[in-house]
Amino acid sequence: MAAPRPTRQFPDQPLPPPGPRATTVSRPGGRSSSVRRRVLDAVRTHLAEHGYDALSVDAVADRSGVHRTTVYRRWRDVGGLLADALTEAIDDTWSPTDTGTLDGDLHAVNREVYAALTAEPPVTAALIAASFRSEQAAAALRSFWADRYDRCAAIVHRAVDRREIPAGTDPRRLLVAATAPLYHELLLLRTLPDPRLAEQAAHATATAARAGAFTD
Amino acid sequence: MAAPRPTRQFPDQPLPPPGPRATTVSRPGGRSSSVRRRVLDAVRTHLAEHGYDALSVDAVADRSGVHRTTVYRRWRDVGGLLADALTEAIDDTWSPTDTGTLDGDLHAVNREVYAALTAEPPVTAALIAASFRSEQAAAALRSFWADRYDRCAAIVHRAVDRREIPAGTDPRRLLVAATAPLYHELLLLRTLPDPRLAEQAAHATATAARAGAFTD
Repeated sequence: MAAPRPTRQFPDQPLPPPGPRATTVSRPGGRSSSVRRRVLDAVRTHLAEHGYDALSVDAVADRSGVHRTTVYRRWRDVGGLLADALTEAIDDTWSPTDTGTLDGDLHAVNREVYAALTAEPPVTAALIAASFRSEQAAAALRSFWADRYDRCAAIVHRAVDRREIPAGTDPRRLLVAATAPLYHELLLLRTLPDPRLAEQAAHATATAARAGAFTD
Repeated sequence: MAAPRPTRQFPDQPLPPPGPRATTVSRPGGRSSSVRRRVLDAVRTHLAEHGYDALSVDAVADRSGVHRTTVYRRWRDVGGLLADALTEAIDDTWSPTDTGTLDGDLHAVNREVYAALTAEPPVTAALIAASFRSEQAAAALRSFWADRYDRCAAIVHRAVDRREIPAGTDPRRLLVAATAPLYHELLLLRTLPDPRLAEQAAHATATAARAGAFTD
């Protein structure tokens, strides 16, 4: 769950313009890390502003101020760029907030998903849309989500430990039930964003879990 | 809910080859109706086999055996073709199966969604993917889903009448909760299709509904 949106990578605010800034700010990791950041920033902003159709290695190179040859050598094609943008979004320090209740924990996760899916520019939505056309991007997105679902299993284990929900509750089924309505409403049905979605889906799923709906 | 898949329009079996057959079979609705059927059949098979990128008015015209000028005049562009394919999928006679229980009714709807999302060729998945790139297709898909959710509200009203679930249960929230996990798993997470998904999501949602999770 959890759309690809750790604050560091996918801020709600428009990303700062790439280029000049990158040359004046010293970055941990040195030149190679700075190049990657500039290129991936350019991928995200270009994708969000102009969509997948306008995304090309040349456009990304121009926008990032990084030489085309470098971008081609390192990322090869649009698929490679998208996959790396998604790989970067896996924040190794991320873990789900511990609020002390299942309702609260699911609501916290859903607030993140909601924020990612309604952000402007719509980076997350654009990355997901792009995954329908690039197998590399699709694979990277699957890895990202698999990582997030794995980490969020802690929410379910804590609820079992607190005896809020039965032992034997399937973490993945519960977590998909909690988050799927947000993706469905905002990405597929494209309903007008309603912030209550996050809490409603969290609460409905916690209620079902307490009634044993996610055990075999 | 309910992906666009009335049996008539989106059979599980590959569609018969267009062209010759269309000229030998008499169709209700006459020549204009026969032309539309041939063209929309060609849209769906071409989309499912080659994806959105390869879809063009010319390719559809060639495949359908209908003159290019006719296709351009009537549908104008790829967006017009997709929108019409989705509009045609609205089957005015469709209504959700009445099985006598909320679990059963939701399971029946989810079986249809599951069949549509796992069909070969993947017509429904291709239409949804295309909706990320054609505003006309996206609008047509929203209309299709809105129509299906409206019709499926009957499931919720019947369950309220039987006193299975509380009066004041929100039909849309319940129906989105029941169907969203299928779209999420099969379309976004692209997990290996598991037919139990349909029943599990139906059962979890019915359980939540009985516990009052979809009332305000």
